[in-house]
Amino acid sequence: MSFNNYNIGLEKNRANFVPLTPISFLERTAQIFPNYTSIISENNKFTWKSTFARCRLFASSLKKRNIKKGDTVSIIAPNTSAMYEAHFAIPMAGATINTINIRLDPKTISFILSHSDSKIIFVDTEFIPVVKKAFKIGNHKIPIIFIDDSESFSKNIDGGQSYEDFLNEGNLEDFVNCANIIDDEWSPISLSYTSGTTGNPKGVVTHHRGAYLNSISNYLIWKMKKNPVYLWTLPMFHCNGWCFPWTMSVLAGVNICLRKINAKKIFNSIKKYDVTNLCGTTVIINMLIEEGIKLNKKVEFMTGAAPPPASVLEKIEKQGFNITHTYGLTEVYGPAVVCEWQNDWSNKKTDKIAELKSRQGVRCPGVSDLQVINKKTNKPVKKNGKELGEVYIRGNTVMMGYYKDKESTKNSFKDGWFHTGDIGVVFDSGYIQLKDRSKDIIISGGENISTIEIENTLFQHEEIIDAAVVGIKDAKWGEAPCAFVTLKKNSSLTEEEVIKFCKSNMAKFKIPKKIIFGDIEKTSTGKIQKFLLRKRANQE
Amino acid sequence: MSFNNYNIGLEKNRANFVPLTPISFLERTAQIFPNYTSIISENNKFTWKSTFARCRLFASSLKKRNIKKGDTVSIIAPNTSAMYEAHFAIPMAGATINTINIRLDPKTISFILSHSDSKIIFVDTEFIPVVKKAFKIGNHKIPIIFIDDSESFSKNIDGGQSYEDFLNEGNLEDFVNCANIIDDEWSPISLSYTSGTTGNPKGVVTHHRGAYLNSISNYLIWKMKKNPVYLWTLPMFHCNGWCFPWTMSVLAGVNICLRKINAKKIFNSIKKYDVTNLCGTTVIINMLIEEGIKLNKKVEFMTGAAPPPASVLEKIEKQGFNITHTYGLTEVYGPAVVCEWQNDWSNKKTDKIAELKSRQGVRCPGVSDLQVINKKTNKPVKKNGKELGEVYIRGNTVMMGYYKDKESTKNSFKDGWFHTGDIGVVFDSGYIQLKDRSKDIIISGGENISTIEIENTLFQHEEIIDAAVVGIKDAKWGEAPCAFVTLKKNSSLTEEEVIKFCKSNMAKFKIPKKIIFGDIEKTSTGKIQKFLLRKRANQE
Repeated sequence: MSFNNYNIGLEKNRANFVPLTPISFLERTAQIFPNYTSIISENNKFTWKSTFARCRLFASSLKKRNIKKGDTVSIIAPNTSAMYEAHFAIPMAGATINTINIRLDPKTISFILSHSDSKIIFVDTEFIPVVKKAFKIGNHKIPIIFIDDSESFSKNIDGGQSYEDFLNEGNLEDFVNCANIIDDEWSPISLSYTSGTTGNPKGVVTHHRGAYLNSISNYLIWKMKKNPVYLWTLPMFHCNGWCFPWTMSVLAGVNICLRKINAKKIFNSIKKYDVTNLCGTTVIINMLIEEGIKLNKKVEFMTGAAPPPASVLEKIEKQGFNITHTYGLTEVYGPAVVCEWQNDWSNKKTDKIAELKSRQGVRCPGVSDLQVINKKTNKPVKKNGKELGEVYIRGNTVMMGYYKDKESTKNSFKDGWFHTGDIGVVFDSGYIQLKDRSKDIIISGGENISTIEIENTLFQHEEIIDAAVVGIKDAKWGEAPCAFVTLKKNSSLTEEEVIKFCKSNMAKFKIPKKIIFGDIEKTSTGKIQKFLLRKRANQE
Repeated sequence: MSFNNYNIGLEKNRANFVPLTPISFLERTAQIFPNYTSIISENNKFTWKSTFARCRLFASSLKKRNIKKGDTVSIIAPNTSAMYEAHFAIPMAGATINTINIRLDPKTISFILSHSDSKIIFVDTEFIPVVKKAFKIGNHKIPIIFIDDSESFSKNIDGGQSYEDFLNEGNLEDFVNCANIIDDEWSPISLSYTSGTTGNPKGVVTHHRGAYLNSISNYLIWKMKKNPVYLWTLPMFHCNGWCFPWTMSVLAGVNICLRKINAKKIFNSIKKYDVTNLCGTTVIINMLIEEGIKLNKKVEFMTGAAPPPASVLEKIEKQGFNITHTYGLTEVYGPAVVCEWQNDWSNKKTDKIAELKSRQGVRCPGVSDLQVINKKTNKPVKKNGKELGEVYIRGNTVMMGYYKDKESTKNSFKDGWFHTGDIGVVFDSGYIQLKDRSKDIIISGGENISTIEIENTLFQHEEIIDAAVVGIKDAKWGEAPCAFVTLKKNSSLTEEEVIKFCKSNMAKFKIPKKIIFGDIEKTSTGKIQKFLLRKRANQE
């Protein structure tokens, strides 16, 4: 730093520098809109004043148990008020929130509890049995606080304390002022274990600064209105609900929490609460399409994770949902790429719009740079919508790294970019479209085949409601495509007919050699587990 | 920092940490919406692609002249495209932008050029004469680049280079990628000299981080829609147009630039360009009220600086402007406090709403904490709307300090708060209302009298269109109020009648002892210069 007059007497001080944290959103909203509704769950209703008070009790109680910066606090719960509160209270206490996927098996839960160095766990009573099994497997000794949200489950938990009793141990005078609640914005806020298609799950660590910026970015890319009514169809345990717990607190919106979802519940909630926004993967979209109800009023729907085919987008928009298509990963705090609407699209036909919207799009404001790199040449791909490359991302909304895994962290950050492992193309407009996970792409006779491309074609068939393509070993070509297909009820489509349909809609070398009918297994986050399908495809 | 597993292997790197800067907004918008209109000025029209290109040329040209971090670049211009470009290009080159008020006298301009250590100055041709005089006074030798925006002014400038020629020296390949364009977000972005009611003006230094956060805050508090059409009625030379040049670049909106404004031009522009948003002080509001035109469509109007009386707010809203009342200072990047709308206000009567809206309100999201401190007890005032105290602010959108003025910086940051020098009260709702500048308050017979309170009462009189109150020496009470009053055209209101009106509307000790009729001098930013009025009042 060379000498100049700006280097003297203009240092940071308590008046002009405060570490960024999404906790500040809650404090401000509780101060300004204390009586606005914050949460409506199946059995309860809260205001922002009460939510802030409960979070302070929660944080204070953690502090009394000596939970502090550097500690991990785990929670396993569906979308309840307690789960929402945990997203503020745990970081408020300085600790890191580790949300555990409710669909995991005891063995994986045990692995996560050990690997994360969890000091305490909050468990919704529905998941006490699976957690008990996990504790037995790993011989875990940490305290359990049980969340008694639903009467359907036993609260006969020996040794455990109830969440409400735990809150009552807290001091309401603690954490009233959240400025400088953390000493450094580069402090962990969340630890999330990714589903991991092979081996043990990896722990993604994110920080307060990134969570603050992605919460704001969500608002910017979705052009959300003031006081939105947000329906929780996306699990908060997945990537902290894409940062939406925090986004909702900036906007003083209403969180509608459902323990379990189905199409009927979603449509009922939309009507009952005048829902303005919801998020979900293609799984949810398909669920809503099958139910088929048309809305009286436009509802904003943000989708991500698994890329929805254009034909699916066209159907759901006809029902009255306005889709914003995003792409992201847990490693980038959720949405990092968004299919921004362009004004001149209004003049296009519905099917063309759906096609444009099926592209993942451009970087969100929290992302500083994005490029798609041809792995052979190590150069950016041409903007021709054809040349394949890996998506690289750089910016403040990229994770700190993987917990206790220097090797994976180093590999994922090679050359100063986060390597997503996703393969895509770039169009002339700069919009990207994903074509595959790098490990899913099929190489057949030296040609790269995008499995997503074949899936999108299959989706165009009226009788096909779900499709997934993987590579199978092929004596002649090395690999060849194999399609898993789910048919509409009462459909009698045959393998031959599907292949015939493919023949008239794609290049010869891309046509699946084999069709397997039936349900397609997915993770709780709607991702198809292609490694499982590959195993099945090669066995069957 | 105690040991924990989060302290290992999770450091910042090029992939996950980028200094915050509002320059990144321009880069993103130019990439994603290249053909959207960015600026419409009186003689020109630009797209975001061309604005970004021109800014890069500008920055590159500065670099070629060895302008770098730590250098100050001055500009004196009305609201033109060049002024807009300067807000991006100068910081892009690493330098600090110093906008000079176009209404200043040569002596003050000379003072600013010296004190700011300006390395180069950009001058709109209209202001070449005043700058030439300033150069003569201070014997300044720095290069002048003249901006030839209007044909009305001579471009016969010996030795100066034209702005367009200057741009042409730049290299379009420079600054294409704006990630990491600055090495530290705690770097100066702007130097703004405050009008200063006594002595020489002080140079407020703000930084990239704060400018980024306040740009976003503007969007949040105003609930701006996508692609707004923003009419520049607020001078960009004042506090960088409250950060709105940068806010507009996040939103890919249209900037309508007018060299000069009057009520007719404003109404014409609103109609012609379908303006959605504009900002201005009470001066502009009064201008629009006098013109009296009713709008066909709601237009969002953000006001600040001088607190508008409820009676004025009521009138302007009836014309179709929806007022968002904010309060701020150059030291806090513009708007720092906002009168947030509360849903239950919808049920109230128009005059009650105007009264509520005349309060300054609550902190903006960029501000972490705000308090009103009784200077005698040094404790927060009671929330009773009565007890007076000084407004203190803390947060990321508080300046770095005053340039080359350690003493003033230290004083303004005493006890870890920025001392605004503004006196106000807090209501039960937590909303604040300003009552005076600390140096303007009148102490009469030991009672504090708010001059703003008296002014608001005067404004309620049908025939009074402007009012300002100051203290005059009084043999008996120490000080007493004196009112400056501007009447409607053709009004024949007398001093006696004004005092009679006051008698029936305020406590006896607050009634002005003297009324002076005529125009009231204001600074270019609409602030009444009470020290001048005080001088006049005590002389007349």
